[in-house]
Amino acid sequence: MAYSQHWEALEARAQDFETPEKHLKQLIAQPERLAAFSLTAAGLFYDFSRQRVDGQTLSRLHALAEEAGAGDRFRAMLQGATVNQSENRAALHTACRDLSPEPILVAGTDIKPALHAVHRQVASFADDIHAGRLTGTTGHPFRHVVVIGIGGSYLGTQFIAHALRHRADKGIQLHFLSNVDSHNFGEIVTAIDPETTLWVVISKSYTTAETLANTRQAYAFMGSHGLEPARHVVTVTSKGSPGDDPDNPVLATFHMFDFIGGRYSVTSAVGGVPLSLYLGYDRFAELLEGAAAMDRHAGDAPAGQNLPLTAALLDVWNTTFLAYPAMAIVPYAAPLDKLAAHIQQLSMESNGKSATGDGKPHTGGSGGFIFGEPGTNAQHSFFQMAHQGRPLPIEFIGVLNSAYPQVQSTSKGVTNHQELWANLIAQADALAVGKTAADPARSFTGNRPTSTIVMADLAPRNLGALLAFYEARTVYAAFLWGINPFDQFGVELGKKTAHGLRAAMAAQNAGDTEYAEDLEPIQAFYLDMLSKGEIPG
Amino acid sequence: MAYSQHWEALEARAQDFETPEKHLKQLIAQPERLAAFSLTAAGLFYDFSRQRVDGQTLSRLHALAEEAGAGDRFRAMLQGATVNQSENRAALHTACRDLSPEPILVAGTDIKPALHAVHRQVASFADDIHAGRLTGTTGHPFRHVVVIGIGGSYLGTQFIAHALRHRADKGIQLHFLSNVDSHNFGEIVTAIDPETTLWVVISKSYTTAETLANTRQAYAFMGSHGLEPARHVVTVTSKGSPGDDPDNPVLATFHMFDFIGGRYSVTSAVGGVPLSLYLGYDRFAELLEGAAAMDRHAGDAPAGQNLPLTAALLDVWNTTFLAYPAMAIVPYAAPLDKLAAHIQQLSMESNGKSATGDGKPHTGGSGGFIFGEPGTNAQHSFFQMAHQGRPLPIEFIGVLNSAYPQVQSTSKGVTNHQELWANLIAQADALAVGKTAADPARSFTGNRPTSTIVMADLAPRNLGALLAFYEARTVYAAFLWGINPFDQFGVELGKKTAHGLRAAMAAQNAGDTEYAEDLEPIQAFYLDMLSKGEIPG
Repeated sequence: MAYSQHWEALEARAQDFETPEKHLKQLIAQPERLAAFSLTAAGLFYDFSRQRVDGQTLSRLHALAEEAGAGDRFRAMLQGATVNQSENRAALHTACRDLSPEPILVAGTDIKPALHAVHRQVASFADDIHAGRLTGTTGHPFRHVVVIGIGGSYLGTQFIAHALRHRADKGIQLHFLSNVDSHNFGEIVTAIDPETTLWVVISKSYTTAETLANTRQAYAFMGSHGLEPARHVVTVTSKGSPGDDPDNPVLATFHMFDFIGGRYSVTSAVGGVPLSLYLGYDRFAELLEGAAAMDRHAGDAPAGQNLPLTAALLDVWNTTFLAYPAMAIVPYAAPLDKLAAHIQQLSMESNGKSATGDGKPHTGGSGGFIFGEPGTNAQHSFFQMAHQGRPLPIEFIGVLNSAYPQVQSTSKGVTNHQELWANLIAQADALAVGKTAADPARSFTGNRPTSTIVMADLAPRNLGALLAFYEARTVYAAFLWGINPFDQFGVELGKKTAHGLRAAMAAQNAGDTEYAEDLEPIQAFYLDMLSKGEIPG
Repeated sequence: MAYSQHWEALEARAQDFETPEKHLKQLIAQPERLAAFSLTAAGLFYDFSRQRVDGQTLSRLHALAEEAGAGDRFRAMLQGATVNQSENRAALHTACRDLSPEPILVAGTDIKPALHAVHRQVASFADDIHAGRLTGTTGHPFRHVVVIGIGGSYLGTQFIAHALRHRADKGIQLHFLSNVDSHNFGEIVTAIDPETTLWVVISKSYTTAETLANTRQAYAFMGSHGLEPARHVVTVTSKGSPGDDPDNPVLATFHMFDFIGGRYSVTSAVGGVPLSLYLGYDRFAELLEGAAAMDRHAGDAPAGQNLPLTAALLDVWNTTFLAYPAMAIVPYAAPLDKLAAHIQQLSMESNGKSATGDGKPHTGGSGGFIFGEPGTNAQHSFFQMAHQGRPLPIEFIGVLNSAYPQVQSTSKGVTNHQELWANLIAQADALAVGKTAADPARSFTGNRPTSTIVMADLAPRNLGALLAFYEARTVYAAFLWGINPFDQFGVELGKKTAHGLRAAMAAQNAGDTEYAEDLEPIQAFYLDMLSKGEIPG
């Protein structure tokens, strides 16, 4: 992409946006600005009127997308093409929620029946648990579910579980044992009741070091309480993996497929099992419907009406052309407190790359840093910088109807929910418009771009649409940048180095005095400090 | 600062660091690298051997600090000088934990007796609660504490409370009602038992909109349960504020002082009341001791031995000269899961400025974006980008001894705690060294800077030192950049705009059909959408 005529034209336009005429306060004052720079689909309203973009730039960005074949590649992805070239795989997270009868062929086989069979298995299993037909060793119904999984095996599930915790009426407490840190394990086993606990081990390969170490610890814990792991453990893993071994019996195994990557797996059994246990399968099914509606929109809508494509174009514009290195996600909805952590993984792991999709060194732009906290909390934290320091695009998310309508006392004539919204609307405006003052400490340059995404309520369907919106946008941005959003070779080197250190520690544990022989001096220092348990000096 | 000879020399050195000879793999291979580039103080080991810095650069940075008078200004701050010039105030968070007999004069009055009297009041109050001498309306002992406060009124307290939750043995559950979002309120009142709940309202001015709205809602909630607020509410606020009004009786009021800013207030009554209720005052006192030890070190240690000063110099070097716009904080300790959120506020609100401390437009560098998640979780999230995408300095934090030593099963010959450490050591190494491969997708450029902070365990004393380390470092960096880390005028414009929107909403609630008269079209659109509760289209 980097050397096309559109690319050069966009670089020139970015220069043009440094002029006072293109200040956001001018742009948003134009008649019908909001109507022209907002879209609606699948229950989401997307307002990008306060992005630093005009009609001409948007057209040019669309031309870039056309040149990159972004729409065609996206539709090819939906149909099972090998879009994950480096790993020679399809990327079919969208197929999990595509309940239409049309087949999707991978290596000549329709993969949809197998995917949908897993959904039915999840529904039936969750039902058996909720009805008390399946119980643990001592016959008590399950009351705690501990998800053992890390990264893509839990972040998206955690986002949805938090967002819907006001609907968690199945009598199940959900815990996430992600970190290999013994503090994480220790805190969870302090909170659960062993007899009524179901452990859900999630790992595609069933070789993830952290997950295996935690599973082993969980087995030891069950053993110490006289419980049979075969009645307290389920696995979510690939067919034939060590987690799908009949010699190691478990209560149930749900299959994962190699064409669904971890960070895109919320609507597979990875999210399906824990979310159905926590919320009931029906709500998970509604989540799937919302995601499917957004997928259809993302594939079918004309470019100019396409929400995820438009958002991706603005990500490319902001990150590559306007050179903002970061973006904040600020939902004005406390239950979305884990959205930013999920998108941080989804986006930074997908698009934080230095090679092109076809294996060359990459020079054509890539993703930025993502972080965020709910508003108004963020206003009292990093918004000082957002207004007066280093600028960054902010994505606001608003929810029109609270899940707690009974919270109705008023302060200064407005309800708390209105107070929340007054702040959301005000922040987007203040960041765009700014304010000139004689005192530099009280001056605001404005011209700081924001988007606002609005949904009617925190219904599973809307959250499914939001999830799929971010997935499609991440993929579209990758196609524009020319990178592969489905691999993650960048995590390999650290794993390999850890392997060597683990071996040295194991030798140290076994009394081998030459355990540090192959280590660098700094590494050896740390092993020594750790075994002594004291800092130097 | 921006035009000194040191500044120019550092700009030249930053260029020099782009050469292969200055790649981190060369630097860390030098003999005694770790010994020369690490420091210990107040229970913290600080390893900056994998920062992109050499002895000559460090000397130049120290010369810059000398020129800026950073050490003298820091010591003046400790003694009560008016370092917060724009608000004409001292900044004496350090005095909260300075239990020495020497007076600290503000406007001719020794402020230490008043500060210490508040500590004694906190100790005695917490003791009365734990012993059941103070109870709510129905005579049951308190079991829930809800902190109502936002930004600096809770983020630091939340960080410490999470870090020490393994020591929370007082039978108290701690909740944070920060956001004005009704979801936040709804979730908390679903979890608490009204009769045994104590509400701690924290606001220096007692005019913070979110906090007042939540307090009003809490009063309505207590009323609906037949409880007397006077027996269920305490306030932490300035003397004479609306929260310190005898006409509105509460169980107790603890005073705040104008010379302690919100984001620096953890060791005042702001943290003292909730942390003493949750953990016992003795543990809060240990936290104070650790913070005091770090303060003494930060003020007294020679520049070359000074941890917070050195860290601040590296922040300036990385952010301003090497042009990294962001830094990640990655503690390999799950209980430190709220550290990054606290430092995000502390640093970005303090140093995200566009004016100098003496009120001129600022050009001499300022702080960057801060975010983070615990490791190893972060490895499975944004570390793909850290290794192969946009580079950023990372700050690792390690804890030598787990609070859960009973978690002892082994996997691949190592305990989970060792597995955690193998990863920490490996990541710092892999990021620095990198790896060359023929395939660009499997190549790692390395040269990515990290620091590692190590403490023996999660004892209150070590956490106090860590807290004070970040506070002192933030202040030192501000002194180097020439900005005032104690004001936050950047949050004012959004508040003012929200004020106008709130008034329009109140008019709308009151049936005034012309409520939108003074609003911009986009603002009016949002108010209309909110009142209808539906997205358009």
